[in-house]
Amino acid sequence: MTPQPAYGLSDWGTSRFRLWLVDGRGDVLAEKRTDDGLDASRARGFAATLESHLAELGARDDLPVIVCGMAGSRQGWVEANYVPVPADLPSILSGTVRIPGIDRDVRIIPGLSQSGSAPNVMRGEETQLLGAILTQNLSNGIIAMPGTHSKWVALENGKANHFSTFLTGELYALLASQSILRHSIGDAVGAASPDHPQFAAALDLMLSGKRMLGELFGIRAAMLLDNLSPEGAAARLSGLLIGAEIAAARMEKQGRVTIVASGTMAALYGRALALSGLEYDLVDADEAVRKGLFVAASRLWPIEQERLA
Amino acid sequence: MTPQPAYGLSDWGTSRFRLWLVDGRGDVLAEKRTDDGLDASRARGFAATLESHLAELGARDDLPVIVCGMAGSRQGWVEANYVPVPADLPSILSGTVRIPGIDRDVRIIPGLSQSGSAPNVMRGEETQLLGAILTQNLSNGIIAMPGTHSKWVALENGKANHFSTFLTGELYALLASQSILRHSIGDAVGAASPDHPQFAAALDLMLSGKRMLGELFGIRAAMLLDNLSPEGAAARLSGLLIGAEIAAARMEKQGRVTIVASGTMAALYGRALALSGLEYDLVDADEAVRKGLFVAASRLWPIEQERLA
Repeated sequence: MTPQPAYGLSDWGTSRFRLWLVDGRGDVLAEKRTDDGLDASRARGFAATLESHLAELGARDDLPVIVCGMAGSRQGWVEANYVPVPADLPSILSGTVRIPGIDRDVRIIPGLSQSGSAPNVMRGEETQLLGAILTQNLSNGIIAMPGTHSKWVALENGKANHFSTFLTGELYALLASQSILRHSIGDAVGAASPDHPQFAAALDLMLSGKRMLGELFGIRAAMLLDNLSPEGAAARLSGLLIGAEIAAARMEKQGRVTIVASGTMAALYGRALALSGLEYDLVDADEAVRKGLFVAASRLWPIEQERLA
Repeated sequence: MTPQPAYGLSDWGTSRFRLWLVDGRGDVLAEKRTDDGLDASRARGFAATLESHLAELGARDDLPVIVCGMAGSRQGWVEANYVPVPADLPSILSGTVRIPGIDRDVRIIPGLSQSGSAPNVMRGEETQLLGAILTQNLSNGIIAMPGTHSKWVALENGKANHFSTFLTGELYALLASQSILRHSIGDAVGAASPDHPQFAAALDLMLSGKRMLGELFGIRAAMLLDNLSPEGAAARLSGLLIGAEIAAARMEKQGRVTIVASGTMAALYGRALALSGLEYDLVDADEAVRKGLFVAASRLWPIEQERLA
């Protein structure tokens, strides 16, 4: 007997759309990844976009779908208001919003907000966070989700508490391709290697308390004076930025770190944390978001246990 | 009797061209400011561009001209190799290069370089620096030249010694107009005011040891959660960046600060230094570069004192 999908899970961001059909245990039966992010889907309509992808995967008309990401922002499909920290699975679930005016049961997971003297928001990462917490069975510690806007969350007694955002990935892209450093990095923008000696050297500089702002131009100068290679320049820029992020995060938060990342990002941050002397575990980012979506779906639409037997 | 020009002085950068005709005392007789930077002048030819501006100002054919700025870079007119620090007026003058193949005596002032573990270069600022040193009659202290790439120079016994570069101005422009913060700042990109409370608050945060990388996204969050205005966002970004610059510079260098700046930049840095508790003097950036060019010219082409009497 072919297993039937129990839920549709979607991570729908500004530039990316991902959809999985999973069975009642969370195992993936079908998968779709496209560039139908919010910006690309707005004209056609969000419901029409989602339905077409569901149809391609052969999903039945009444399959419930849970969505996380920027689809729940004010500029997205339907706004799901931020849930304030401290937050856990029940409080996040209580903030999910059902899309009105369509037959299918589609719900959007809200982001998290932090008010006060260090205002902050996340949207999409809260689902990765739930997945990582459940995968690792965590109650306390730090969860780091590196990326365009890296998030570091302190988990205390099972609740996501204070969190910080670092503009690391976005700043890397801007500096490598649009600042004066583009002359030093050129086509090596995607070639920052955690094994290049410049990566460790730059990281050490940041961990020793130097300010990133005063070290960036040194990449240009090292090219002019010492023939620093494009790969060396990329590794150095990456080390400066990730080093500044880790130096700040470890001042603010203590505990074992769980990194939620994949591919190159996992390699860069893994090496950086090891060089920083911090203990860490790695959780795959893709698996984490799927796990978070699945757990939310299975709480929203529980399946009788005998059907899973 | 109409005073006759003794020298042409030019600050020739990547995007800007400035030319003054001055008499033997350095007083300005005529002035030209255009967008004929290097990029705009390359096709027409550097000599032709300079000659046309000199002709417009009525300069005689044998008026000697001194040039500083990126015109002396590898991508410029003729390369003037960097002079290593420690450097003073004589060592900088010894590195000037005469443009070959033209009748007029045109010389380019070299930039400064710093080798070793903190490689660095400047080109154009060395002339501002000479002007500021002479204007203020300095032998020791710190000279700060804020801008796209802010330079902080330690002056010791009359010589420019260790210097640092901060990507402050370039990062402000990139973040305000191309990062996620553009949604918070919008048209207020040029409206960062030193009197906005967000400027002082952000500056304090940086001086207290926080990392800029972890505070940038807070501008976006404060807009979403607390309705931070575009002007407030611009002032906060400016305070974070200038604060990070000053926090780093004051760790590295001690002494009274001379800021070389004009207009808004002078106002922002003046307020920032005052809030930092640092003592400072202000020298106008335009006057400083003209003074530096004039002093170089009058050493290269001395005029008999009786002619000035």
